[in-house]
Amino acid sequence: MLGPEIDRLIQLLAKMPGLGPRSARRAALHMLKHKDRVMLPLAEIIGETARRINACSVCGNLDSRDPCTICQDPTRNDSLLCVIEDVADLWALERAAIFRGRYHVLGGVLSALDGIGPEDLDLDGLVARVDKGGIQEVILATNATVDGQATAHYISDRLSASGVRLTRLARGVPLGGELDYLDDGTLAAALGARLPVE
Amino acid sequence: MLGPEIDRLIQLLAKMPGLGPRSARRAALHMLKHKDRVMLPLAEIIGETARRINACSVCGNLDSRDPCTICQDPTRNDSLLCVIEDVADLWALERAAIFRGRYHVLGGVLSALDGIGPEDLDLDGLVARVDKGGIQEVILATNATVDGQATAHYISDRLSASGVRLTRLARGVPLGGELDYLDDGTLAAALGARLPVE
Repeated sequence: MLGPEIDRLIQLLAKMPGLGPRSARRAALHMLKHKDRVMLPLAEIIGETARRINACSVCGNLDSRDPCTICQDPTRNDSLLCVIEDVADLWALERAAIFRGRYHVLGGVLSALDGIGPEDLDLDGLVARVDKGGIQEVILATNATVDGQATAHYISDRLSASGVRLTRLARGVPLGGELDYLDDGTLAAALGARLPVE
Repeated sequence: MLGPEIDRLIQLLAKMPGLGPRSARRAALHMLKHKDRVMLPLAEIIGETARRINACSVCGNLDSRDPCTICQDPTRNDSLLCVIEDVADLWALERAAIFRGRYHVLGGVLSALDGIGPEDLDLDGLVARVDKGGIQEVILATNATVDGQATAHYISDRLSASGVRLTRLARGVPLGGELDYLDDGTLAAALGARLPVE
C-alpha cells in the first residue's frame, strides 16, 4: 500500500522485540525523515555488525574477536566462572562492573514446555572448561525463575564430581525495593536469609 | 563496553521513537541472534529504502516515484484535496481506504512554542495548487489539537479568497469509544453536533 520498500521495512521492523506494527511505522517514518543522520548510518552499522560480530567459541559472548575481548583479557580472574543464560545477562553484569571473572553463556535454559533439553544448551562446553582445570568456583547465575533454577540444579549435578565450589546469587529485597510491592516468595526468601545488623 | 560496533548499533537504535536504551539492547541482541533472517535483510532494506524513497514534489508523500503513486493515480478525484500535517496521517487515511482524492502534506503545524512559522510548512505549494484551479474542495484534516486547529484556521484565511469549499473533519465520539473515558471537550463537541436518530 505504501510501496514495496516501505511496506517491507515496516514488516521487518515490526518483528523487533518491543516494536509492534504501529511503532514500526513510526520508526520507519522517523528514519525516512532523517536519512543522513539516522537511516544511512543505521543501515551501515547493522550490516557491519552482522558481518563482524560472532559468538565467542569459548564463552558464547558476542564480539568481533574470537575468543572474545573478555576471554582474552589478562586482568580477569581465571579461577572464577559465572554461568548465565543469555548474552543479555552478560551485558547486565558488565554494566554493573562488579564481576572480574570469566563468563559462560548457556544460550537458554532447560524447559520441558519449550522442548529445550541439555543438548540444546552449551553444557558440554561448560563441563569441558571445568574439567580442563584452573576454575575454583562456578557461580550459577541463571535467572531466579523455575526454568532458570531447574537448569542451575541440573548443572550442579553435572559438576558435583568435579570438586569446584558451586555458588548461586543471593536472594532478597532488591535495592530500592518496597516491601509492599514485593511478591511473597521474595519476602519469604529475604526473611529466611536475614542477617545480623552490623 | 560491548565493543564499538554493538555500542554504536544500540546508540542508533535507541534514537528510534518508541525505543529506549533497554529495548534498543534487546533489539540489537535479537538481530545478532537472527542474522540471516532479520539482521542482513534489515540492513539491506533500510539502505535500499533510503536510496529509493523521496518526498513527492507535488504533495509531500514519501514514495519511490516523483510525482508519487497517489498523485499519478488517474482514478483519483482531482477536485478534492485533503490537507494533512504529516505523512503518518496520509498513511492512516490510506489504511482506512475511504478517501479517493489527492493529498497535501504540510510537513508540520504552526507552533509558536516550537518556533515553527508559515515559512516552515509547505503552504506556498498548497496555495499554488489551489490557484492552479481544478480543486473544488479542500479538507483541512490537521490534528484536533490546539496547534493543528490554529494551522487549519491560518490556511482557511489564506484560501478564503480562492473560492474553494473549505471543510474540516467531524468531531465526536470515536467508534468503540466509551463516554466514561472521553474528555470533556469531545463530549461537548459530540453533544453540540448531535444528529436526529434515523
